[in-house]
Amino acid sequence: MIGRLNHIAIAVRDLGAASRLYRETLGAEVSAPQPLPEHGVTVVFITLPNTKVELLEPLGETSPIAGFLDKNPDGGIHHVCYEVEDILAARDRLVSSGARVLGGGEPKIGAHGKPVLFLHPKDFNGTLIELEQA
Amino acid sequence: MIGRLNHIAIAVRDLGAASRLYRETLGAEVSAPQPLPEHGVTVVFITLPNTKVELLEPLGETSPIAGFLDKNPDGGIHHVCYEVEDILAARDRLVSSGARVLGGGEPKIGAHGKPVLFLHPKDFNGTLIELEQA
Repeated sequence: MIGRLNHIAIAVRDLGAASRLYRETLGAEVSAPQPLPEHGVTVVFITLPNTKVELLEPLGETSPIAGFLDKNPDGGIHHVCYEVEDILAARDRLVSSGARVLGGGEPKIGAHGKPVLFLHPKDFNGTLIELEQA
Repeated sequence: MIGRLNHIAIAVRDLGAASRLYRETLGAEVSAPQPLPEHGVTVVFITLPNTKVELLEPLGETSPIAGFLDKNPDGGIHHVCYEVEDILAARDRLVSSGARVLGGGEPKIGAHGKPVLFLHPKDFNGTLIELEQA
């Protein structure tokens, strides 16, 4: 069912500093920051030859990553995103196996304009998993 | 400098249960478990079309992931591994930029039989980064 690793997402406090670190110290290709107010984050994309890393900085009063940064003041790996061909079929398979889908189970349009779901970390070894319809 | 994402590593308490979850619930291709006593872990490899996920279970009394599992009882994403062409050149560039390389800075032979280094998470947004010479 799961296909490519679409991205890993790392929550950071200071997107400018983190972008410089990846660009200058690690020598990676880092995009300009993109504010995504509807998702409560500003993001930069780091393009690797086989996948992407996304750096997320909180945006606005109710950012979904604010709590994570309270618990992880230095930042940290926030989630991984796997691609699926059919997100509704994936959801139904997961729900029938007893896994919990966050937010009521209806896919939302994610940061890449495609339908996404998030799975409960308690059901997946403490890992927040995003599924994105490829 | 950094190239492909070689793998993400997820620490788990029960490798059998985690393997079933990835194989049956998430429908992924999961290898047989491989004990790596010299690294203090037993590992399974999950093959995705563009990269790998490694599930790590502690092995032995002094596993390097035991402390992580004490802090994260459900498990969690433990590190990410980026490939580099020349690990000594990468190390020298990192050290000259002020980043801390763990374990004295000499590459060791990692779980894939190639030279690896780990970078201090405090210097990289709370992310433990492994570099592997490709």
